Amino acid sequence: MIDLLAIPTLSDIIKAHEVIKPYARFTPVLRSEHVNKRTQSDVYFKCENFQKVGAFKFRGACNAVLTLSDEEASKGVATHSSGNHAQALALAAKIKGIPAFVVMPDNAPKVKVEAVQNYGAEITFCESTLEGRENTLKQVVAETGATIIHPYNDSRIVTGQGTAALELLETNPDLDIILTPVGGGGLLSGTVISAKAIKPEIKVIGTEPEQADDAYESFKAGKLIPAYSTNTIADGLRTSLGELPFNIIKTHVDDIVTVSEDSIKEAMRYIWERMNIIIEPSCAVPVAAIFEGKVDVRGKKVGIIITGGNVDLDNLPW
Amino acid sequence: MIDLLAIPTLSDIIKAHEVIKPYARFTPVLRSEHVNKRTQSDVYFKCENFQKVGAFKFRGACNAVLTLSDEEASKGVATHSSGNHAQALALAAKIKGIPAFVVMPDNAPKVKVEAVQNYGAEITFCESTLEGRENTLKQVVAETGATIIHPYNDSRIVTGQGTAALELLETNPDLDIILTPVGGGGLLSGTVISAKAIKPEIKVIGTEPEQADDAYESFKAGKLIPAYSTNTIADGLRTSLGELPFNIIKTHVDDIVTVSEDSIKEAMRYIWERMNIIIEPSCAVPVAAIFEGKVDVRGKKVGIIITGGNVDLDNLPW
Repeated sequence: MIDLLAIPTLSDIIKAHEVIKPYARFTPVLRSEHVNKRTQSDVYFKCENFQKVGAFKFRGACNAVLTLSDEEASKGVATHSSGNHAQALALAAKIKGIPAFVVMPDNAPKVKVEAVQNYGAEITFCESTLEGRENTLKQVVAETGATIIHPYNDSRIVTGQGTAALELLETNPDLDIILTPVGGGGLLSGTVISAKAIKPEIKVIGTEPEQADDAYESFKAGKLIPAYSTNTIADGLRTSLGELPFNIIKTHVDDIVTVSEDSIKEAMRYIWERMNIIIEPSCAVPVAAIFEGKVDVRGKKVGIIITGGNVDLDNLPW
Repeated sequence: MIDLLAIPTLSDIIKAHEVIKPYARFTPVLRSEHVNKRTQSDVYFKCENFQKVGAFKFRGACNAVLTLSDEEASKGVATHSSGNHAQALALAAKIKGIPAFVVMPDNAPKVKVEAVQNYGAEITFCESTLEGRENTLKQVVAETGATIIHPYNDSRIVTGQGTAALELLETNPDLDIILTPVGGGGLLSGTVISAKAIKPEIKVIGTEPEQADDAYESFKAGKLIPAYSTNTIADGLRTSLGELPFNIIKTHVDDIVTVSEDSIKEAMRYIWERMNIIIEPSCAVPVAAIFEGKVDVRGKKVGIIITGGNVDLDNLPW
């Protein structure tokens, strides 16, 4: 049995890249003169909002599903999520031809429920509490024997998320800094393993909303401090940092900085208007960090992983 | 003196590509499983909404400005436009280090005026009538000696616009059909020259709003029929087809089809939601054409040139 909390290596991430390559997109890197001028730096946006299901989450889910044993695979996979991980897992399971069981709160937005259904997953609705979700998931697993795939506290997921930085450094080897948002920590931890192994002198910095700063607090304290009230617009980052990601982040990441809600909204709209790409509030967080000067990027080559683009066009924050 | 109404050749377009390459972006090609499933085809989106100034127009403007004689260049360039061509010409002139004079109606949106100003152009405001614009432009040219660069009825512009299809066929040589919107006709005419010279059996089809169907009517009649009332949301396509583009389109393009306003809006939102890219209503026109079945693409490889992404986020059509 594999250790789901084992810290992956670059070699694991390279293997994962081979595994997911036929299914995941090698996403393009975009640039913007406006952003470069504003920040006096040279910014390279790795556009995971163009990844399948519209988010980097497909990388981890795809790696997890495609590396199941045949016996595990035959019984399917399960998770509780109303976000991008649910869609990512549903699509990965569809590709593998196995069942996906997704537990969603009964107040989940219709558009998210339909997206998961369209990828062929079986949805079980539950009360909208963490307890309700976890109990329902346990029940689903007891009935089906499906393997739970956690959205970030899972070595296979962290390994998969690390492939985005692998691609970014393949196309842009001369980056000085890479920035990502941090929610559960899967992307930041995968990124720092790839980046530091490929280029030890590179800086890797996590960015977080002030209103959901548990990763910042945990990083400063050197121990996991769960998120309490998380009132940020960056809905993908409301979750608490996971144990495995934190074990990686605390020793390898150079810094974690926080940004205000106003600067997240401003950065989000700026990128929509100047780059013509749709980014979620979560991906505006690293952009806000360089706009606010929270990370000094002047004269540097900066990589930013744009994590996803799933937003409700009827409820934009402006 | 060069003939501004001469029909360009593939060799002219290849030369233009060399000229603009250091300044224009080689834009990425994106795909969408949702679009492919819906249309039962394989669609390749050439993303000129990621081009500099957010539109393919930069290609033509850049080629026109960079191929001026030294004497012409010293006096600058001029145009009347409140759209993407104005920004494109302003940026091209800035790159070349020469003045750009742009005539804009006094009711032009502030955001468009500022964009042109930010690229360093000198703006002269005029009454918002065609007569007002043309008279003011004549006056500006009389005073400055600047060279007028028409947005589409100019061989240098058509040649530049043809470089988008050149790149698309370089990365995707096995396309069966290429679709573009048609307004003044610069993009469609440049595209058909590139595409048919590279691959004679390829189909090139223009797409137009029903509410601005002068190219459709002209193509069917075999003679130029100007646009009268043009009430379409696709603001980039309200203009009448130009003489030079029409001379190319009438003999080389395979068909022109029209689509309804509702289907333009639906296609625009669909692309925003499923592909996470911001496209103008004008670029939703070819997408609407394949969604409506106006062009039979089933089983085919289809290239669509996404022309631009300059929209007002405070005035979305939903």
